[in-house]
Amino acid sequence: MRKIAICGAGMTPFGKFPHASIKEIGRQAVWKALLDTRLKPSDIQKVYCGNALSGAITGQEMILGHVIMRAAGLTGIPILTIENACSSGSSAFTEACMAVAGGFYDRVLVLGVEKLTGSNTAHVVKAMSSATDVELEAGYGLIFPSAFALLARKHMEVYGSTSRDLAAISVKNHNNGALNPNAQHKDKYSIDDILNSRMIADPLRLLDCCPISDGAAAVIICPADQAKKYTDQPVYVAASVMTTGQYLQTNDLCSFPVNQRAAQQAYEMAGIGPEDVDLAEVHDCFTVAELLHYEDLGFCAKGEGPKLVREGATELGGRIPVNVSGGLLAKGHPVGATGVAQLVEITSHLRANAGERQVHGAKVGLTLCNGGFMQGEPCVATVNILKR
Amino acid sequence: MRKIAICGAGMTPFGKFPHASIKEIGRQAVWKALLDTRLKPSDIQKVYCGNALSGAITGQEMILGHVIMRAAGLTGIPILTIENACSSGSSAFTEACMAVAGGFYDRVLVLGVEKLTGSNTAHVVKAMSSATDVELEAGYGLIFPSAFALLARKHMEVYGSTSRDLAAISVKNHNNGALNPNAQHKDKYSIDDILNSRMIADPLRLLDCCPISDGAAAVIICPADQAKKYTDQPVYVAASVMTTGQYLQTNDLCSFPVNQRAAQQAYEMAGIGPEDVDLAEVHDCFTVAELLHYEDLGFCAKGEGPKLVREGATELGGRIPVNVSGGLLAKGHPVGATGVAQLVEITSHLRANAGERQVHGAKVGLTLCNGGFMQGEPCVATVNILKR
Repeated sequence: MRKIAICGAGMTPFGKFPHASIKEIGRQAVWKALLDTRLKPSDIQKVYCGNALSGAITGQEMILGHVIMRAAGLTGIPILTIENACSSGSSAFTEACMAVAGGFYDRVLVLGVEKLTGSNTAHVVKAMSSATDVELEAGYGLIFPSAFALLARKHMEVYGSTSRDLAAISVKNHNNGALNPNAQHKDKYSIDDILNSRMIADPLRLLDCCPISDGAAAVIICPADQAKKYTDQPVYVAASVMTTGQYLQTNDLCSFPVNQRAAQQAYEMAGIGPEDVDLAEVHDCFTVAELLHYEDLGFCAKGEGPKLVREGATELGGRIPVNVSGGLLAKGHPVGATGVAQLVEITSHLRANAGERQVHGAKVGLTLCNGGFMQGEPCVATVNILKR
Repeated sequence: MRKIAICGAGMTPFGKFPHASIKEIGRQAVWKALLDTRLKPSDIQKVYCGNALSGAITGQEMILGHVIMRAAGLTGIPILTIENACSSGSSAFTEACMAVAGGFYDRVLVLGVEKLTGSNTAHVVKAMSSATDVELEAGYGLIFPSAFALLARKHMEVYGSTSRDLAAISVKNHNNGALNPNAQHKDKYSIDDILNSRMIADPLRLLDCCPISDGAAAVIICPADQAKKYTDQPVYVAASVMTTGQYLQTNDLCSFPVNQRAAQQAYEMAGIGPEDVDLAEVHDCFTVAELLHYEDLGFCAKGEGPKLVREGATELGGRIPVNVSGGLLAKGHPVGATGVAQLVEITSHLRANAGERQVHGAKVGLTLCNGGFMQGEPCVATVNILKR
């Protein structure tokens, strides 16, 4: 296996761009990633496009990667679209790593892209619910806010976490988003603002939930020993893991076994432990998800997520800053783009160019992206570890 | 790179199964492929699911591979869905080959699956049209029958092919379908039947066009040197190529440069030429497509496709039998399943168990699957070469 580096990374602002087509959004990210390197469009040998919902929302099904790449000027190379719910972009990245590590290609572009606005919100929410089993779960109302509300209630009952702990995660991520020019939400909130926001699925309130977003992010990868040709600041991929839930077991609803498994594989692959991680971008689709991720990733012991929050350990400047980008809650969550945007964020910290939200001295960053949901755990877990 | 073998292959009948869910259809193919080996479900290490239209037709977007694999009893392993229009299944196969050839996994399952019926036909046709650029082409009526009708007219004008030549391809493929228990259409037709069928897009008539179908097909691949553990009849993958159209050039509308390029790469990879191919399964979504494929694959010189037809060279028993399965025209075309079903067909011939339609002594088989369409050529071309 060859070692791999990210030699280029770029993203669009995340937000609501009802008048922009998915082509325009995707093309912007492709060009930003290319401009971050010394590569030309014709140097790219293969493209993985991660997208979840274009068919349902924009009507461009089946050949999305191709129409975006034609718009960006990349043709005549293998292009394919990977669909894996909210992990579409990060699953595309893991596949791309395999293509380079295995020696099949030297310069591969990974695009994550999503366009959700421009349609009515009910339609978007219905489309999003197709990331569960539509016959057995979505149809009975067990869509994402209700599923995560159940998990939150259970964690409160078993481990004594509170709505205030969840609110503190939202406050932190919005504080971070205010420092990120690409974030959808730049407003800061107090704990009380969160606790007084509209109830969505008890105990989750509006500001416990990520928004509906448009946006795209792209990275270009190459063999580690070629990276200096294309960039002065390569970032190395120490681990890239994608795996799937083990749905036939019951679990305690206070952890995601699939995330624990993915993290363990990634730590082994990278030869590090959770104590070596300087910052992490995790999948805070709801505040409670971030809480569970702290425990599943080993940033604290099981049940001690609330303690981590109360100590401020995951704030910018804390022991292990989490979601300094603003996370899904404040940066936004254009579904298929999220996993790639996490990599873009970590890359900027490892290059020490993350501006006001820089995690100083960051040498190791981790991303966790989840996708779909069946029988109490995510369908997909992707964990990447990057090193400078 | 490790050499790869197909150690298991299976498919459902293709046809109209309006009451079967996509889970049931997909699961059947997964189990048929497993039963064709000595493997248990828990031996599979990764799954690639090729699907094009489940979101648009069944509402199960985003995690299709996961819901099918849970139904089939495969969990806890990496699962992802690849969308590449009519090449979704064959693109999934090429990715899977990379995963095994690169040494990342030893036993990988590839499922191609599609469920189109149960919705009204206008909805299905609209969904199918999303395999073109929906903003620039589909919206103006340049959907598949009209696009291929233009190509047919051009080939007739330049090379003197006739509606009778096209009809002869349909007659041949329906004759073959009559021998295939898994074919959707088992009726035989005369040249006059084809020429008298309803006009769809001049000069293409109803029996020049493939039907709307449901179905699934699956193969299991492993390193060549492990294959005998899992099956007594391994079939070897000599080449697996996926590439994309070069849309910025004009072409003559009588050939698909992307297919020529994919075929050339595959022949080089396999170390053979078109004269070494004993049988081929090609993408006859319309009769004229098969005619162009003869020329692009090098089975005859450019413009000599009609001569090949008139000689009967591509019939069962001819010099180079094409679509002995019945092809898309008679076997059916469940979009994402087609590319994998082509591999299942070739596998059965190389194992000498194709029954009445066996190509005797077949040692080398080729598949060509196309997907999508922009600016006069397919978006995706996949060519595989299998050897016994």
